[in-house]
Amino acid sequence: MVKVSVIGATGYAGAELMRLLVSHKEVELVHAASKSFAGKKLSEVYPSFTGCDIVLEEMDLDTISKDSDIVLTCLPHGASASAVPALLEGGARVIDLSGDFRYRDAGVYETWYKQTHTAKEWLKNSVYGMPEIYRDQIAAAKLIGNPGCYTTCSILALYPLMKSGVIEPKGIIIDAKSGVSGAGRSEKLANAFCEVDESVKAYGVGTHRHTSEIEQELSLAAGEDVVLSFTPHLLPIKRGIISTIYAMPKDGIAEADIKEAYAMYKDEPFVKIYDGTLPEIKHVTGSNNCAIGFVLDKRAGRLVIVSCLDNLIKGAAGQAVQNMNILCGFDESEGLNGTGWYL
Amino acid sequence: MVKVSVIGATGYAGAELMRLLVSHKEVELVHAASKSFAGKKLSEVYPSFTGCDIVLEEMDLDTISKDSDIVLTCLPHGASASAVPALLEGGARVIDLSGDFRYRDAGVYETWYKQTHTAKEWLKNSVYGMPEIYRDQIAAAKLIGNPGCYTTCSILALYPLMKSGVIEPKGIIIDAKSGVSGAGRSEKLANAFCEVDESVKAYGVGTHRHTSEIEQELSLAAGEDVVLSFTPHLLPIKRGIISTIYAMPKDGIAEADIKEAYAMYKDEPFVKIYDGTLPEIKHVTGSNNCAIGFVLDKRAGRLVIVSCLDNLIKGAAGQAVQNMNILCGFDESEGLNGTGWYL
Amino acid sequence: MVKVSVIGATGYAGAELMRLLVSHKEVELVHAASKSFAGKKLSEVYPSFTGCDIVLEEMDLDTISKDSDIVLTCLPHGASASAVPALLEGGARVIDLSGDFRYRDAGVYETWYKQTHTAKEWLKNSVYGMPEIYRDQIAAAKLIGNPGCYTTCSILALYPLMKSGVIEPKGIIIDAKSGVSGAGRSEKLANAFCEVDESVKAYGVGTHRHTSEIEQELSLAAGEDVVLSFTPHLLPIKRGIISTIYAMPKDGIAEADIKEAYAMYKDEPFVKIYDGTLPEIKHVTGSNNCAIGFVLDKRAGRLVIVSCLDNLIKGAAGQAVQNMNILCGFDESEGLNGTGWYL
Amino acid sequence: MVKVSVIGATGYAGAELMRLLVSHKEVELVHAASKSFAGKKLSEVYPSFTGCDIVLEEMDLDTISKDSDIVLTCLPHGASASAVPALLEGGARVIDLSGDFRYRDAGVYETWYKQTHTAKEWLKNSVYGMPEIYRDQIAAAKLIGNPGCYTTCSILALYPLMKSGVIEPKGIIIDAKSGVSGAGRSEKLANAFCEVDESVKAYGVGTHRHTSEIEQELSLAAGEDVVLSFTPHLLPIKRGIISTIYAMPKDGIAEADIKEAYAMYKDEPFVKIYDGTLPEIKHVTGSNNCAIGFVLDKRAGRLVIVSCLDNLIKGAAGQAVQNMNILCGFDESEGLNGTGWYL
Repeated sequence: MVKVSVIGATGYAGAELMRLLVSHKEVELVHAASKSFAGKKLSEVYPSFTGCDIVLEEMDLDTISKDSDIVLTCLPHGASASAVPALLEGGARVIDLSGDFRYRDAGVYETWYKQTHTAKEWLKNSVYGMPEIYRDQIAAAKLIGNPGCYTTCSILALYPLMKSGVIEPKGIIIDAKSGVSGAGRSEKLANAFCEVDESVKAYGVGTHRHTSEIEQELSLAAGEDVVLSFTPHLLPIKRGIISTIYAMPKDGIAEADIKEAYAMYKDEPFVKIYDGTLPEIKHVTGSNNCAIGFVLDKRAGRLVIVSCLDNLIKGAAGQAVQNMNILCGFDESEGLNGTGWYL
Repeated sequence: MVKVSVIGATGYAGAELMRLLVSHKEVELVHAASKSFAGKKLSEVYPSFTGCDIVLEEMDLDTISKDSDIVLTCLPHGASASAVPALLEGGARVIDLSGDFRYRDAGVYETWYKQTHTAKEWLKNSVYGMPEIYRDQIAAAKLIGNPGCYTTCSILALYPLMKSGVIEPKGIIIDAKSGVSGAGRSEKLANAFCEVDESVKAYGVGTHRHTSEIEQELSLAAGEDVVLSFTPHLLPIKRGIISTIYAMPKDGIAEADIKEAYAMYKDEPFVKIYDGTLPEIKHVTGSNNCAIGFVLDKRAGRLVIVSCLDNLIKGAAGQAVQNMNILCGFDESEGLNGTGWYL
Repeated sequence: MVKVSVIGATGYAGAELMRLLVSHKEVELVHAASKSFAGKKLSEVYPSFTGCDIVLEEMDLDTISKDSDIVLTCLPHGASASAVPALLEGGARVIDLSGDFRYRDAGVYETWYKQTHTAKEWLKNSVYGMPEIYRDQIAAAKLIGNPGCYTTCSILALYPLMKSGVIEPKGIIIDAKSGVSGAGRSEKLANAFCEVDESVKAYGVGTHRHTSEIEQELSLAAGEDVVLSFTPHLLPIKRGIISTIYAMPKDGIAEADIKEAYAMYKDEPFVKIYDGTLPEIKHVTGSNNCAIGFVLDKRAGRLVIVSCLDNLIKGAAGQAVQNMNILCGFDESEGLNGTGWYL
Repeated sequence: MVKVSVIGATGYAGAELMRLLVSHKEVELVHAASKSFAGKKLSEVYPSFTGCDIVLEEMDLDTISKDSDIVLTCLPHGASASAVPALLEGGARVIDLSGDFRYRDAGVYETWYKQTHTAKEWLKNSVYGMPEIYRDQIAAAKLIGNPGCYTTCSILALYPLMKSGVIEPKGIIIDAKSGVSGAGRSEKLANAFCEVDESVKAYGVGTHRHTSEIEQELSLAAGEDVVLSFTPHLLPIKRGIISTIYAMPKDGIAEADIKEAYAMYKDEPFVKIYDGTLPEIKHVTGSNNCAIGFVLDKRAGRLVIVSCLDNLIKGAAGQAVQNMNILCGFDESEGLNGTGWYL
């Protein structure tokens, strides 16, 4: 049993993490901190936890780091950069779900997040928590920057193609659509039911932070600077992301080459490459899977890739648990092997 | 390990049962039969099962009963009555999810289902599969009639009140609202997205079959014939039922008496009695829980009870697994102890 | 052309009123006041008004009353009681959409709204704005208290039955379900998309203010004090209410008697009595109609009535326009004769 | 008054057309034909028409053409090609909402629709019914091929840019998302509520018929063959399309050049060009508007255009009425000037 604490347990990602952790056989939950609800029972904030006796606490970094082998932080960006160093110095290993420890270059972070990074010195020790690419480094990490939801969906779809050189690194377009839980639990009018229901909108066109995270990893894969177009959209659903990605296949590339590139995932427990069909959001909802399919449109000279995941699971809490499993030497699927819900 | 087969594995209840069974640690799935999709992989019909190698078969009753300790039948009513006797005679124990084996009196069935019961002789051996009431009989049963979704939601809310005599047995009104998955997977126009979305309708007013099932069990609890009003409604959601129930408290009954009646559930793993608040559908979605709250409206002289469950889990597949666990002597919560999804 | 102003033009009811008024052939819009958005164009707040040049103003009661023949006030309750007297004294006629001028007895208001009524002296001059009951008084009114959404749906269904004495005045139960726009445009977490979607909840059980408004009108119809149970529910839809109402038919009452009672609506432009079928929310969405159907369940001894309307139209803005048309001597359907949307 | 008939009045586009026509002041409806529901009242099929006495008829082409000045045909493709010639020969003018009369080259139709065109000889007399491009020809037409929903949304966004040469004609990507009503009223499992709700899928990637219609019109604008990528997606909403379009601006093109190109719409009643913001589906739902906004992403070298319309109105029935208004010399906005619903 590993001693685990969660900071920021009552946002949507935090609550999903709690849901996964309470069923995890190797985890002893020691602290669950919530700024807004300290003193309340988790089941008062999320009645789906009825029967579960967890009481939310104030965030006491000393106590938490001392009592925990692993701390999962679900704080807003900026707040993580403030809290994480103390946890690490206190001896805990940290998996951070914010954007604060995902970057190799603090300058990129500061440009896209438009704020100073207050824990730059820790970036060099941080591992980007995408097991399909960095499994070995994750196993040895003290600090893991858990990837973003849109970014996981995009990088998993594009990394093998970029790495194997079957697509042009230029001109990639990612048209991504996400459920509302990706915006977190807050009282913004923009996320009110009547504003979201029966509508779809694009937002953050050309400026969404996840662009820089995707470009970072794809540039490493390509061995050259990748600049791409990323357009997120808000869908009237709770969970799930579907990204439709447009790339130019290199000359002479056939379907078989694409399949061969994706064969890098053949032993991955949570990446599902479709053969001849395309994934839909409901194929992955409730699971830690990322499902990927593609169409090579020779007429238009485009490779169209469709990638789906559950933003709260493979896009946040599930991937964090997967990273924790690797870090602790557990079966990588422990606590994550449920089938998706479909309904 | 117990050898389990499912007949009718590709309707919504059947697929949910498959989802629960593939994660159940004590179950070896031996056959999954589907009339519509025999020969296909389950993952072709429900891609959420991607990575799961189950192949759907024709319904061969001899082979299935010979190979299985337990068979779960998710057939339309009438079809179950035809298939189940052969399974029982072949030596399997059966948990039937249709209405065919829920009645003590074939005449009631024939009145409400408007068809002849073709396996009347088995009714006397069938146990009504509601563990909170019939746990001991379930443990010893050869044939279990797994309760309906609306009925579970209503009976769990009313049985303790009726049994303890805190409410009048007359004049009960159940205003129930269900998600669309309760109507099964079919191509009816009435269930098309554009017909259901952004609307609600009442249906089967005064004639819905579940009325008779609720009345059967409440009459037994009351020791007299209970006749009630039951109105189902179709909601634009996938899963979940909320029943708002109106009863007349007997003279002098106070809140404490209601709570005391519900105390019969204090050790039940899957019934959650709220104290001072009311459950919402999302509190139970994805779990095997039935959550119940109430308001004693003294001004109007009414007890208003709100009862929620997930129609595919506690209202169908989850309750079937719970019954199977009891039948097999497993921990009753095995495979069912996940927290609800909330999102 | 009549000169019309709207105060509170940017809440959901206010915006719906603006939508109806800009298409109304007899209306000249002179002022549209909005506390939150004064100085902005209406189309900036609701881009569906793109191309419409209305600029929102501060609420200047003197100017508004001087410039307007009719003022429609869409303010929170309490705020209306403060603003309306000045408008009336300034010479305008007022249709108020809040609860402030719907009551005959200020004490009832103060009990249910839990606040002092600051314009009690105007209640005796106020007409309850339900044309089907008070058309003549409306035509002559200086001040109209426009009915609530739930109340319109309930009163229209029950008034003829109560008036004609075909049902018992005691023991009535109204199980009402409403779309989220009924809660207004605000940043409450309870109305956030992820909290509402795929769920339903009951709220305000036994305490919802509309109970008292329904009881007031039904008591007048019955000639005795009516006390009833009213339970509102929140649906994951934008617009629309469906009320399922349970009443006890008096001895010997047959379907024909119910139909005869409802015949009082035979010339009403906006009440649709169904014959043998039941209305669904989508039958009325987008229209000013209230659609009513019923089932006489002799087995259970209940009359079950289903009543549907669009809460923003017949339940608020549309009824206000209907009242305005009567007040001004226009065709009562002017600006309201569109067919419902269905989709 | 013009005498108008509708053939195919009970599909979703047909019903929307009926909704618009019953409120149209210059229209006398003479026949409404429906294969599935002949003999029934329209209000039995769509109860939102309650109070409207239209009786559906069999499709009798002779009678219809003889009695009507204008016939609007909402038939499946292929069926229109069979029926329309008789209507034209009988003397009626025809606005056809299928794909059958949208093409200049029957070969393109036959390639994309995978069937023989049985009325090729009429294509040369048919006018493509997009008023913003072909207003003058529409006014004089005997036969109008009313554009598709996706195509209207895409062509209106791209035509001015292509015509004015501010974007490269190559490499355009249209990522389009549509509500379910676009798939028509039918009993397909793929459109069942539980299959669509809380999910999104791409379909017809590289093969959707509307691709060819968009390419036809943009090629004419560009003066060269345009080949593009078009990916439709199914959204869990009833109405509305949002298309996110990616084009490469030509060297030196600035925002002002884009705005100037779109200035061609400055007098259009139904095209709304946003200045600095982006449209959302809910901005146009219920209106005949197409709303267009853009972001020039200099970093990535892309022009991102977002275009929204209501697929049943500007994408089908509303555009047909607009064409009819032009054909008849009515005010082009007659029957179409309602503000969008927002809610």
